[in-house]
Amino acid sequence: MATPEYTPFVFLLLLFQSGVWGVPVCQTPQESPTCGYKSCHATKPGMLNVHLVPHTHDDVGWLKTVDQYFYGDRNDIQHAGVQYILDSVVDQLLKNPDRRFIYVETAFFYRWWKQQTDDMQNTVKQLVNEGRLEFVNGGWCMSDEATTHYSAVIDQMTMGLRFLNDTFGHCGRPRVAWHIDPFGHAREHASMFAQMGYDGFFFGRLDYQDRNRRMVAREQEMLWRASESLTPPMADLFTGILPNGYNPPEGFCWDQSCDDPPIRDDPDLEDYNVDDVVTRFLHIAHGQALVYKTNHIIMTMGSDFQYENANLWYKNLDKLIRYVNQMQSNGSEVNVLYSTPSCYLQELHRVNLTWPLKGDDFFPYADSAHDFWTGYFTSRPALKRYERISNSYLQTCKQLEVLGGPISRKGPFGAGDSETLKHRLNKVYHCTVCVTSLSPLSQVLVSNTLSSLSGSSAPRVYCEHLNISVCPLTETSKKFSVNVYNPLARPVSWPVRLPVNGTAYSISDAKGKAVDSQVVPVSQATAAVRRGRGYAVNELLFQVQAPPLGYSTYSVSLLQNGPPSPPSPLPRFLRVTFDRETGLLSSLSNLETQQTVKLSQNFYWYNASDGNNSESIQMSGAYIFRPNTSTPFIISKTSLYLHVFQYNSICMRPTKRSRFIPWFSPWVSQVVRLYTDSRALELEWTVGPVPIGDDLGKEVISRLDSSINSSGVFYTDSNGREVLQRRKDYRPTWNLRQSEPIAGNYYPINSRAYIKDDKDQLTVVTDRSQGGGSIQDGSLEIMLHRRLLYDDVRGVGEPLNETSDIYPEGLVVRGRHLLSLSPPAMAADTHRPLAQEVVLQPLITFTDGELHPSTRLEFSGLQAVLPPAVHLLTVSQWDQDTVLLRLEHQYQASEITHTLLSLGGDPSVWEVSLKPMEIRTFLLRVRQR
Amino acid sequence: MATPEYTPFVFLLLLFQSGVWGVPVCQTPQESPTCGYKSCHATKPGMLNVHLVPHTHDDVGWLKTVDQYFYGDRNDIQHAGVQYILDSVVDQLLKNPDRRFIYVETAFFYRWWKQQTDDMQNTVKQLVNEGRLEFVNGGWCMSDEATTHYSAVIDQMTMGLRFLNDTFGHCGRPRVAWHIDPFGHAREHASMFAQMGYDGFFFGRLDYQDRNRRMVAREQEMLWRASESLTPPMADLFTGILPNGYNPPEGFCWDQSCDDPPIRDDPDLEDYNVDDVVTRFLHIAHGQALVYKTNHIIMTMGSDFQYENANLWYKNLDKLIRYVNQMQSNGSEVNVLYSTPSCYLQELHRVNLTWPLKGDDFFPYADSAHDFWTGYFTSRPALKRYERISNSYLQTCKQLEVLGGPISRKGPFGAGDSETLKHRLNKVYHCTVCVTSLSPLSQVLVSNTLSSLSGSSAPRVYCEHLNISVCPLTETSKKFSVNVYNPLARPVSWPVRLPVNGTAYSISDAKGKAVDSQVVPVSQATAAVRRGRGYAVNELLFQVQAPPLGYSTYSVSLLQNGPPSPPSPLPRFLRVTFDRETGLLSSLSNLETQQTVKLSQNFYWYNASDGNNSESIQMSGAYIFRPNTSTPFIISKTSLYLHVFQYNSICMRPTKRSRFIPWFSPWVSQVVRLYTDSRALELEWTVGPVPIGDDLGKEVISRLDSSINSSGVFYTDSNGREVLQRRKDYRPTWNLRQSEPIAGNYYPINSRAYIKDDKDQLTVVTDRSQGGGSIQDGSLEIMLHRRLLYDDVRGVGEPLNETSDIYPEGLVVRGRHLLSLSPPAMAADTHRPLAQEVVLQPLITFTDGELHPSTRLEFSGLQAVLPPAVHLLTVSQWDQDTVLLRLEHQYQASEITHTLLSLGGDPSVWEVSLKPMEIRTFLLRVRQR
Repeated sequence: MATPEYTPFVFLLLLFQSGVWGVPVCQTPQESPTCGYKSCHATKPGMLNVHLVPHTHDDVGWLKTVDQYFYGDRNDIQHAGVQYILDSVVDQLLKNPDRRFIYVETAFFYRWWKQQTDDMQNTVKQLVNEGRLEFVNGGWCMSDEATTHYSAVIDQMTMGLRFLNDTFGHCGRPRVAWHIDPFGHAREHASMFAQMGYDGFFFGRLDYQDRNRRMVAREQEMLWRASESLTPPMADLFTGILPNGYNPPEGFCWDQSCDDPPIRDDPDLEDYNVDDVVTRFLHIAHGQALVYKTNHIIMTMGSDFQYENANLWYKNLDKLIRYVNQMQSNGSEVNVLYSTPSCYLQELHRVNLTWPLKGDDFFPYADSAHDFWTGYFTSRPALKRYERISNSYLQTCKQLEVLGGPISRKGPFGAGDSETLKHRLNKVYHCTVCVTSLSPLSQVLVSNTLSSLSGSSAPRVYCEHLNISVCPLTETSKKFSVNVYNPLARPVSWPVRLPVNGTAYSISDAKGKAVDSQVVPVSQATAAVRRGRGYAVNELLFQVQAPPLGYSTYSVSLLQNGPPSPPSPLPRFLRVTFDRETGLLSSLSNLETQQTVKLSQNFYWYNASDGNNSESIQMSGAYIFRPNTSTPFIISKTSLYLHVFQYNSICMRPTKRSRFIPWFSPWVSQVVRLYTDSRALELEWTVGPVPIGDDLGKEVISRLDSSINSSGVFYTDSNGREVLQRRKDYRPTWNLRQSEPIAGNYYPINSRAYIKDDKDQLTVVTDRSQGGGSIQDGSLEIMLHRRLLYDDVRGVGEPLNETSDIYPEGLVVRGRHLLSLSPPAMAADTHRPLAQEVVLQPLITFTDGELHPSTRLEFSGLQAVLPPAVHLLTVSQWDQDTVLLRLEHQYQASEITHTLLSLGGDPSVWEVSLKPMEIRTFLLRVRQR
Repeated sequence: MATPEYTPFVFLLLLFQSGVWGVPVCQTPQESPTCGYKSCHATKPGMLNVHLVPHTHDDVGWLKTVDQYFYGDRNDIQHAGVQYILDSVVDQLLKNPDRRFIYVETAFFYRWWKQQTDDMQNTVKQLVNEGRLEFVNGGWCMSDEATTHYSAVIDQMTMGLRFLNDTFGHCGRPRVAWHIDPFGHAREHASMFAQMGYDGFFFGRLDYQDRNRRMVAREQEMLWRASESLTPPMADLFTGILPNGYNPPEGFCWDQSCDDPPIRDDPDLEDYNVDDVVTRFLHIAHGQALVYKTNHIIMTMGSDFQYENANLWYKNLDKLIRYVNQMQSNGSEVNVLYSTPSCYLQELHRVNLTWPLKGDDFFPYADSAHDFWTGYFTSRPALKRYERISNSYLQTCKQLEVLGGPISRKGPFGAGDSETLKHRLNKVYHCTVCVTSLSPLSQVLVSNTLSSLSGSSAPRVYCEHLNISVCPLTETSKKFSVNVYNPLARPVSWPVRLPVNGTAYSISDAKGKAVDSQVVPVSQATAAVRRGRGYAVNELLFQVQAPPLGYSTYSVSLLQNGPPSPPSPLPRFLRVTFDRETGLLSSLSNLETQQTVKLSQNFYWYNASDGNNSESIQMSGAYIFRPNTSTPFIISKTSLYLHVFQYNSICMRPTKRSRFIPWFSPWVSQVVRLYTDSRALELEWTVGPVPIGDDLGKEVISRLDSSINSSGVFYTDSNGREVLQRRKDYRPTWNLRQSEPIAGNYYPINSRAYIKDDKDQLTVVTDRSQGGGSIQDGSLEIMLHRRLLYDDVRGVGEPLNETSDIYPEGLVVRGRHLLSLSPPAMAADTHRPLAQEVVLQPLITFTDGELHPSTRLEFSGLQAVLPPAVHLLTVSQWDQDTVLLRLEHQYQASEITHTLLSLGGDPSVWEVSLKPMEIRTFLLRVRQR
């Protein structure tokens, strides 16, 4: 076939948007006269106005898959059918123009919408235009806040909001963020919502002590200043705590799933109860008004998957409003109305109060003294890693779709796009559904683009199990090439490990230059977890580099007679020592800054509470972390058979007894790697199957103990971005009564955590979201894996006990912690780029045999490397000739000053200014050269 | 106040109707072009046509009260809210004109209808006029068939059908009877339905052996010849057995209460299952076609209280029809359509087959070898008696409303009518809800009418507990009058027993003539069950008479010195003897016919199965009767202290040991009474509290053992009318494999049962519905009371263990069996009028003190007594100037020849012809004189 014309990547500025979401603001800037705030019902100034907000909370995957939830399949697991909810709500809204409804999860709405007739679509548009159906939040799903990465959150929000904008225009734009179910709230989420242009934020769950204090102080509504870096009010967001979680007040649930008495208002029938209902409602309304500041209160009239038969709700709400308001003629000063969160927000705004300020976040979340929701930070660690890998694939696919142009979507390998992957991936963001990895359609896109860019249509092979040294092609081929695509906007170097059965290989880079390599035996731990999926006996190790937004190609050939191993270069940045007796880490040194700390690391497990306890019967489970005692059990005091590979970058000496058994125990092992070119020490841990034959649930941690004088303080990131200080047994906004010395000191770690003193900062970058804490000074522990025997009674209805077909005796999980040691002021220079490398990992693909001589072996989509502070967050095809570009300043204010960069093709240059932690989104028209 | 003008009761013939229901046929005789059979969807002649019938089954009271069911209150007991069902079905019918729905229970529809706006009512009328909403059955409720009396059934059917006719006219007329849930089927019901003009009858439950045979023989559809007396086809009714009870086929229940998979037809989503659903459906349809005769089959798509969210059903049914019929283009010969029972019936009719003939009934009903539904014939015996008494009150009220004219509804005692009583009473016909007795509104009506007819507005006192000798007025008053109203159309004489504390009274009748009376002590059994509700030490006994449809008044005065007791006249008709050793009955003689049988009677209990059994774990419960052994336990071999009162009509000698302790045991007692003027021996039994301290559930029977050579045969009535022959261990239409020797030989006894041989017939008339059998020749046993320890797993979810505030240790039940002995050919002359006297009992009311001299002490609403064969079934105000009159021939063909009578006022006379067992209904315009 002919080599396709190469279409370089050229930006031409067309439109820009100051918020994060990619919808052009100039499209319909003025407010429609019938939707939005103007569509709110009038309230009565002298009265207590009760805003009834009919709503449903539809998890985009929880106990069932998203499509099971949509269709109402497997109602034996949980009764929920979203298709019927939307059918029913629309029907009922049409019956009475006073009625209101809010809808939240666009993943479901999208499914429903595309099954509707034109007539129905027009009817719904009319409801939206009149403000009777209002979208709130509006992302593809309601993301979890503790375990999600900001890049994925922005992506799924963009996907949902774009659908709403494309479908409904201005009136479809959500005005409030609505996170009623997440188990604690991240400051970065509030910051993103503020930057996205939301007018307010409502949620339902917060620590019970925090809530109690706020109720007494009437501080359940506040201004959240959600960034220490962004200039106020850039990250300021009005935030309200809903009165009953997100449920209706007690006795007023009229969904089909509830048993509360309906309003029986026919005096000819038995059990007429209007007086009783009105009395109870007034009592509740007056009580609620005591813990809020204004003469407006909100009541969420709905809950999980409610409104499948909306008639039940609305028929009774109509009556409630009628009969309660009828009392006004008898002197009642309570006025009830159908409302929405934005209408409620508008009334609060009109009151013109100054709200209390909130600066920290809402983690951890406890609903009573021994019920800390800090287990789910780590639960299902394989899925949590899977989500991160998939996001990396998705970002790469989107970049390649732009770089390849139309040929990416329809090329020599068929038709495909990134939509399927986007949809599947977005399901993972909330909870525990399963997705498949890099889908066939996405592989087609990657193949098409790489074929187009390289001029080679040789079949491209994908190996998804390189982390356990499985790749049929490299295991058998005598000659193959390795394409390494770099999704970052700066050149990056990575170590590559390929499973092979030869003992020596010659490798050349894109310029034909020989590359040093090494062949080492596959570790016993890796062999143990492969379970017949591969039989490589060796790993081929070499370092690769790829240009920004581009690829480089390496050719690999088996050598019949192995050359001698190249000399191991000494690492340039770090030094580690090990204890000769125990085999454990004993110190870490930064060779550049000449600093050293004492550092040991080992694995422990907490014995999960079985609820058999005098203080509380709470069990550890999928959500709740509750260790039985505050002292974890050590798994092995020694790592007797520490195995040290002679990597091309490894520095440390093996102990005399060094063998190929790097186990701490039969179910915990670790490989320590130190690379020549890296500022990070890699601890690759493998944990599982966690044994439960002793009938003890186990929560496994890796703990670092250092000489750093951390004074009870440590630091964790918020959704992978700005870092918050954490202090043991302390909360910034209330007097904590600590009741769980371990679980109550755990926080989410999305990308990094650190401890520091004046001289030293020890930072751990993680490869997935985990939970952790600093229980002792100088110590930092991160939970890796959990296997439990009891349900924690939070709805999931089963113990967290993961098995699979491949690991029927319990899931084995492998992951990496990257440790760096720096002076505090310089630490971000290491951990910021390091964390981005973990999030946006290279995409490695293979072609068998010799490449055609005309193949282009190296390519970069950028004309220039971006400045170190600037991270290229998103490059994505927006529509046929428009590309979405999202840039961010990846440092906090305390870490660096602000950044200016130039973007441009020929001939113009356009300057973009980014302040610390700022994200800016651009829509660019792309012209093909 | 002025004496109101007396308005005599005059019939003028205006309209008549040949069916039972009182709707004039001339109103809209022609069929509307858009409803009824003409509204049916076309079928495909060469294909298997599957008629999908969307329906809901809404018990008018079961686990909840009817109003709780209507509103959806107490959904914690059972999820059911009929208001929402009707809301939802109407909504969904409007969405697609192909959709159909049938509605059955007018009690619910009526409640819903009166809450609707004019717009909604017009919408529903349109749906009915187009045959999209079709009423089937249409009575106030779906009556039970085993325990109901025909007079009550006709009343409730009339009430429902009249509402439908008044509201919807011709198109509201049900064409099929639909008894999908009753536990067995009575021939009299089929006869009534045939006479009411239904075109067909469908039901769901029948004996499993019967069903199996019929499936193999393809005899699940038949012609039921439902009377041995009425000339065919007067009582012929096409009868169809539904394929899945009344449920949808397995896997196709799409109600919110079901978990079957919905049709997932979006190929972009996971779990697309259209092919699977279509394949499963075709498999089921072909299988069903094998056990029915035609190329039309019916599927009931609904169940108990389903369609609360009709969208779920219809959305999936729409898809099912679309995808199954799409297969026709691939050669499938199955055609699915929305249908109704009448549309299905029409297609069967068009096939023009001769159906197999059915002559007996469908009792008893067993759903497997040890699961005979013969317990519920007796369960809740107090409620069963209560229903019968209430019906008598209702008939009396309706008569008095006619007799009193307008003044009955608004008179000196206020405003009232019989509607409330009708509504409340009709709720009892199906199941187990509680109603209050003669309601205040009905008392107003009775007081007004009696005041008008008598010319006395003296306050009228009602005593509802005369059966346990409680009446505050008679217990304390020294002078009072007793008004006895006779609801029968012939003069009747009854014994009256009034609780008093005096020892002698003088009594005079309406003509001033002295009446013999007697004062006897209240029995110890009665004193024991009163529980503080009365303190009378004596009973005043005397015989009263009242003219047809009229009253007679008796004056009673306390005498200071008791007169000597009048001599006891000897009974003229019967003689009984007792065994001197045991105190039990030993013989019964008819003095007129000179016949005598040996006869003993005693009480026994069956030990209810607790399910701990090798053959079946079925427990005895509210529905199922399953004794542990076939031999009942005797309660006492002797009635040692037989107590014989010297009634004004009692004949037998006391034993030497006679005392006031007529107990067989502390919880079973009986009084035997023989009256001078009666052809029946009265056994007044009192049973309870049934002891369960031994952890044995008990089912208490009264058993008669006689010398009659009954040869395994006995007879029971069907709904109080025609009598069917029963043969032990035998069914007329299939080869019975008897698996429960007692329960499998039990049949419902609504009003009477008898055994006979060539010479002697021993008949027992009951005062309520009970169950019974003849296990040995010459023996007849009737179950009186049941107290059980286990639920029988048929939905009620609790053991049958009745207690009350008054009887917390277990309900005490009192009732009567009336025994007669005759030559078989003459037996009906006794038991027919006797049973009517038990059903329509006199209404006894009281006024305190002396009556005004102008008071009219006697009145009759009839100018002439009706012939003995004619029973005045109903006299009821139809509308302002029309009265409904229902006459029946109360004898079977084998009992008497047909009857001609004249009806008329001045001056015309009109002749009505009645054949045996025929019921005729007339609407008469009444002119007030």
